[in-house]
Amino acid sequence: MSVAARKPRISKAAFAAVMRDLVPYVGQLGIRVQRLGFGTISLVMPASRQLLRPGGTIAGPAQMALADIAMYGLVMSRLGRVELAVTTSLSINFLRRPAPAAITAEGRLLKLGRRLAVGDIILRSRGQPEAVAHAVVTYSLPPAKGLAD
Amino acid sequence: MSVAARKPRISKAAFAAVMRDLVPYVGQLGIRVQRLGFGTISLVMPASRQLLRPGGTIAGPAQMALADIAMYGLVMSRLGRVELAVTTSLSINFLRRPAPAAITAEGRLLKLGRRLAVGDIILRSRGQPEAVAHAVVTYSLPPAKGLAD
Amino acid sequence: MSVAARKPRISKAAFAAVMRDLVPYVGQLGIRVQRLGFGTISLVMPASRQLLRPGGTIAGPAQMALADIAMYGLVMSRLGRVELAVTTSLSINFLRRPAPAAITAEGRLLKLGRRLAVGDIILRSRGQPEAVAHAVVTYSLPPAKGLAD
Amino acid sequence: MSVAARKPRISKAAFAAVMRDLVPYVGQLGIRVQRLGFGTISLVMPASRQLLRPGGTIAGPAQMALADIAMYGLVMSRLGRVELAVTTSLSINFLRRPAPAAITAEGRLLKLGRRLAVGDIILRSRGQPEAVAHAVVTYSLPPAKGLAD
Repeated sequence: MSVAARKPRISKAAFAAVMRDLVPYVGQLGIRVQRLGFGTISLVMPASRQLLRPGGTIAGPAQMALADIAMYGLVMSRLGRVELAVTTSLSINFLRRPAPAAITAEGRLLKLGRRLAVGDIILRSRGQPEAVAHAVVTYSLPPAKGLAD
Repeated sequence: MSVAARKPRISKAAFAAVMRDLVPYVGQLGIRVQRLGFGTISLVMPASRQLLRPGGTIAGPAQMALADIAMYGLVMSRLGRVELAVTTSLSINFLRRPAPAAITAEGRLLKLGRRLAVGDIILRSRGQPEAVAHAVVTYSLPPAKGLAD
Repeated sequence: MSVAARKPRISKAAFAAVMRDLVPYVGQLGIRVQRLGFGTISLVMPASRQLLRPGGTIAGPAQMALADIAMYGLVMSRLGRVELAVTTSLSINFLRRPAPAAITAEGRLLKLGRRLAVGDIILRSRGQPEAVAHAVVTYSLPPAKGLAD
Repeated sequence: MSVAARKPRISKAAFAAVMRDLVPYVGQLGIRVQRLGFGTISLVMPASRQLLRPGGTIAGPAQMALADIAMYGLVMSRLGRVELAVTTSLSINFLRRPAPAAITAEGRLLKLGRRLAVGDIILRSRGQPEAVAHAVVTYSLPPAKGLAD
């Protein structure tokens, strides 16, 4: 069976609860799960007055929080609920100023090793084809949770 | 007169207001200005329940927000209140898990050009000598605000 | 006409000459053009004793040179022969140790603006499906060569 | 005894031989060791026709190779000759176009853990005060060579 056909190891509802409950600073963003596969994810962060910054656009820190939690979801989609997986690096390029609208995140895994996972995330203004930001995120995995390198 | 001796082009109080008011998602963090020079900055982000994540440590997105706003301050310390300066990239390495305590940010400018500013920021658990994270942040400057390249 | 159907603005032969002649430190790598589209590129770097490092794998600096020149090609595929486009940042994650074999690079453009281009590049050991490295590269474009932002 | 007072665990001559012999693609650059401390390093890469690129400046890949080998030296200055330490990520910002002259690299360690080392490197045109590039480099350490986290 191909990877694409396998079921994610955490449900949409369970990962939505992770986002809502585990880290309040991220939970307040109200991010929703659009799609969750075995190593793929699509999230949407609604716009709100709280996320605006001068210029009438979405603040960078909210976009970074979205990219980071998307990678958390990619990891859990393959390994199940590994709360103690932690970000070890995040590198983001802001490509275009997003409209004051919802932002979607599409993620893919580039590597899932024994100790480390790496993925990249494209952020878009909802409904627009062009990327507003692109992030590469690495997570350190708790012992005995990752796959063989 | 050396750069070190020059006065910052925004006051501590004025930059504290920028942090509090311009971006609510960052303003809620209650970040305070410890020191502001002409191209140097020191901020402190108090700990709070809201910033915790599993493992009893400070969430990465809060650390990234702190690094990003520290760079905003570095830019304003040289150019004055340029609200429309925007982050174009941020790259952070998380080096150690911080205690659930206040985080300090020390920033320095690596380049201040006509169109682009680059700086790096070291984050520490308050009172500890070792870095918990290191970020490199670039900002795009509004026309006619930056210096000659 | 879709972007995918448009022809690249530099030919494979012309870009192969750019790689061979403009930067001798990269030219010596003998990189070949496999495929060149309008905003897409595929290169191959042959293995050689010169590129090995301890552990019997391909040295990181050679992989970085390959990613960097692939982005140069992406830019020229859209804008023609803009020799004065220069790298402004490169961020690479090494994901797996490559075999001492040829390395392929597949690139895509994430943004082509008036002043800045951003792309990402996946490196693989030739014939293997999994990435050995992933790079994000930004180039600064000479005035009047980029597109409208 | 303070860290600053401790002697490096590899000599200048031994690390010069590492640079010259272990990776021919880097060895050809003729990089010299100016200073080597316990967790600090200063290297100089002489200019040569081979390193030039259009615009009469030093090619980015040569600067990246210099930053990468400087981090290798930082690791060996603390752990001795650990040839199998490998780069896991490198992120570089090119800040100013260097003159066609020698480039110096000054490195410092930000973290030396059990499995991972992180440092940053500032590149300058020799004799100039301002940075031409700034890199952050992470290395993975072979088992039982790194320090306790």
